[in-house]
Amino acid sequence: MRQHKLALCKYHFLEWVCDQTERNINKYKLFTKNDRVLVAVSGGKDSLALWDVLNKLGYLTAGVYINLGILGNDLYSVKSQTLAEKFASDHNLVLHISNIKSEYGKTIPEFSETNKRGKSKPCSVCGLIKRHTMNDNASKLGYDVLVTGHNLDDEVSVLFNNVLGWQVDFLRRQAPFIPAKEGLIPKAKPFCRFYERETAAYAILANIEYMEDECPFSVGSTTIENKELLNQLEHQRAGTKLAFYLKFLKAKKDIFTDLENDMYTEELFPCPICGQPTPKPGYCTFCRMVTRS
Amino acid sequence: MRQHKLALCKYHFLEWVCDQTERNINKYKLFTKNDRVLVAVSGGKDSLALWDVLNKLGYLTAGVYINLGILGNDLYSVKSQTLAEKFASDHNLVLHISNIKSEYGKTIPEFSETNKRGKSKPCSVCGLIKRHTMNDNASKLGYDVLVTGHNLDDEVSVLFNNVLGWQVDFLRRQAPFIPAKEGLIPKAKPFCRFYERETAAYAILANIEYMEDECPFSVGSTTIENKELLNQLEHQRAGTKLAFYLKFLKAKKDIFTDLENDMYTEELFPCPICGQPTPKPGYCTFCRMVTRS
Repeated sequence: MRQHKLALCKYHFLEWVCDQTERNINKYKLFTKNDRVLVAVSGGKDSLALWDVLNKLGYLTAGVYINLGILGNDLYSVKSQTLAEKFASDHNLVLHISNIKSEYGKTIPEFSETNKRGKSKPCSVCGLIKRHTMNDNASKLGYDVLVTGHNLDDEVSVLFNNVLGWQVDFLRRQAPFIPAKEGLIPKAKPFCRFYERETAAYAILANIEYMEDECPFSVGSTTIENKELLNQLEHQRAGTKLAFYLKFLKAKKDIFTDLENDMYTEELFPCPICGQPTPKPGYCTFCRMVTRS
Repeated sequence: MRQHKLALCKYHFLEWVCDQTERNINKYKLFTKNDRVLVAVSGGKDSLALWDVLNKLGYLTAGVYINLGILGNDLYSVKSQTLAEKFASDHNLVLHISNIKSEYGKTIPEFSETNKRGKSKPCSVCGLIKRHTMNDNASKLGYDVLVTGHNLDDEVSVLFNNVLGWQVDFLRRQAPFIPAKEGLIPKAKPFCRFYERETAAYAILANIEYMEDECPFSVGSTTIENKELLNQLEHQRAGTKLAFYLKFLKAKKDIFTDLENDMYTEELFPCPICGQPTPKPGYCTFCRMVTRS
């Protein structure tokens, strides 16, 4: 790991990932051993590695898997659900399953066809539905915190995009921990300081069977373009990604006044259908989409 | 020009550059027709194109050329001074010449060899000396404003670097206009919204003879690496560079409180030798370097 000037054997690498995760959890005050933690599981390397690490560290975890109904040539959702279920049963852990088609009547590709947000790509619709469904599951099932497997490359790619467009409200809200807000459960990203290579190495060395295929809709996405560019930068100057992210977290405190109390600058209203907060009075974007379709 | 969805013939392109420059000067309140404007001239396309445009628009201009004593294989400083002088005499304009070696005893490469700032590359020493000497010339000769030929690619490359390292004080100060401060003359960048391709096209179409060689020390610099990366982004999404810069200027107003009165957050003290402001009481970095060498 050039950015850390560190080389480890298999045994010490696995231990290092666990130690660093515990450190991040404490450093960013994400949750404690008493909290009921719900892990958002996609079946990919990051979320399964995260679940594995949290379980080893002795946290009280369950998983939630959302079947998006994405098939492609590789039966994407079918395969990833099987892998998530296998991990849960191998480790004797509870996995909640949500199915978009059975719960809301349509798959992600079907929603995206009938919605103007999804005209070119279903990614925007998919993000909206996942955020809603994750939060819904976590609140209804009584969990204290929702955790996601976002790694440093994910965070840096989003940060890069928000900086290119100087989206000040998004910059303000990007953090390893998003506190609770009426109708929104707290969200945490314990893997936010790990490079993607590191989470992949963990999953392989820990013998986790994970979904290796990328989502068929991700080809040519801005996120992937950004990641390629940032990899070039990292290659030219090792440690750039980590420094970019950590210095951002530090700078935020200087540039955004009253950040603690004011992560959401806009007033929020509860949606009359689902109760989740929305920036305008009336139905939230999710419920408008589902009821209209 | 993909970013503007605009294609112009030679005649209208030259006119467009002049019109847009006038618009920038007014938009960012850079200077007026009554101000005595000193143009920092390197002999390259940007500074000579800028001088040409300002002259055509009827501003009261003179130039200042700083001979840095950089030779390389191509007699860099000799050739660029000749081209700056030719432009001035062809257009019947005043050009002040400063020579680092005769004024301060050493060339840029010589200063950089004896100074720890210049250990790997003389760029840091060169920037320091140029900033000092420009400001010194402008104040002593009684000009109202110093203008530089920085184009959009220059500005975006610096912005990108400051964002990667989240250098909040540098971000705060990056602007098309830097107001006067005791000992510092105002600085303006009328070309900050032009792509490098546009200033190059102007220089060629206006038949300006300019220095085509890059500074021999610029090879492999961070600035050039950044520019290549940003060109890739621009290629993938036309207009990215312009949007990145303009949205930054807009976002600055939201994220930095009291920007007008508070561009310099730190207290500044006059250097006892040259009188220019410095963040600590005592000699400024420039005078320390010159007196120590």
